[in-house]
Amino acid sequence: MMTAPIDFYFEFASPYGYLASTQIDDLAARHGRETAWHPIMLGAVFKQTGARPLVHTPLKGPYLQHDVPRFARLLGVPFTEPPVMPANSLAASRACLWLQGDHPALAKRLPKAIFHAHWGEGRDISLPEQVADVAAALGVERAALLAAVADPAIKQRLKEATAAAIERGVFGSPFVIVEGEGFWGADRLNQVEAWLAQGGW
Amino acid sequence: MMTAPIDFYFEFASPYGYLASTQIDDLAARHGRETAWHPIMLGAVFKQTGARPLVHTPLKGPYLQHDVPRFARLLGVPFTEPPVMPANSLAASRACLWLQGDHPALAKRLPKAIFHAHWGEGRDISLPEQVADVAAALGVERAALLAAVADPAIKQRLKEATAAAIERGVFGSPFVIVEGEGFWGADRLNQVEAWLAQGGW
Repeated sequence: MMTAPIDFYFEFASPYGYLASTQIDDLAARHGRETAWHPIMLGAVFKQTGARPLVHTPLKGPYLQHDVPRFARLLGVPFTEPPVMPANSLAASRACLWLQGDHPALAKRLPKAIFHAHWGEGRDISLPEQVADVAAALGVERAALLAAVADPAIKQRLKEATAAAIERGVFGSPFVIVEGEGFWGADRLNQVEAWLAQGGW
Repeated sequence: MMTAPIDFYFEFASPYGYLASTQIDDLAARHGRETAWHPIMLGAVFKQTGARPLVHTPLKGPYLQHDVPRFARLLGVPFTEPPVMPANSLAASRACLWLQGDHPALAKRLPKAIFHAHWGEGRDISLPEQVADVAAALGVERAALLAAVADPAIKQRLKEATAAAIERGVFGSPFVIVEGEGFWGADRLNQVEAWLAQGGW
């Protein structure tokens, strides 16, 4: 029987999206499942919910700056504070959508590499050239990527993907949907795993 | 050696505060620790963070209404949607602070009973009379409680307790502080437990 993939929605500027990105494929594999990675523009979502980036929120900002490195240590994954938070993730997200269409074999390797460059190594992934550097290390042609992230059709695809995510109830990063059940937050992956292990509860 | 209690901050109108309230004492006891329960006025905190009740937030509201009963089922605790959300928790919180001063043996039983009445049984705990009903079942004199929740000194105590919580970085419910480390959310109790088990990481 074909089982639908686990949908993994994320925003590159979200540190909790990064933390989840280091776990979700292994988690899915432990239950014989595939994942589908969906970059979204969280800014567009925040316009609907009235939220703003956590890092700019009183009290929550300092919490996040302490919590994210602590959470990364617990998971045993690298963390380096990027120079700009939140980064502009448009080029990174568009590059991923382009690869999903034209180079599916690389489509998951690129977002993992971008997340690692940004949150693991502290590189600023706001500029298209920097996304192209990350992609080039995976064998993606720089010129093709730079053309793609400026392509109106790709820009439109990201808008539509974000609208479709909102339509499904996605409002944060990371957001996982499994068997129609949504789970928000890197700290809910244990519930995603319990859902898979028990077939719901 | 005397070890400081684990600080458990909560708002009665918060369903995630309720979920955590059913777990925190057992969790602490597994590690030989005590807890200190701190009701706060989350509305005062939200004025600083710009947050608003989740239940009134687009996208997050529907998520919460699905997530809370699902989370309660996972924990095996009762859940009944209250008639008013968010409830006005002033009388409930003041009653707890009053007991902490005058009847410490009951000080933890009352908040547990109020949480259970509100989120387990779906009773509206907004009115002082309803808080008095819950407290009366524990042997607290109704008239004394009703006088206490109208006492300016008790009102001031709650304001000061909330200000002190904000000063410590508390901005949500539940919020646990252990060895100076803050953990926000019912979905972080597993990290609180890991912190206790490992002595940090």
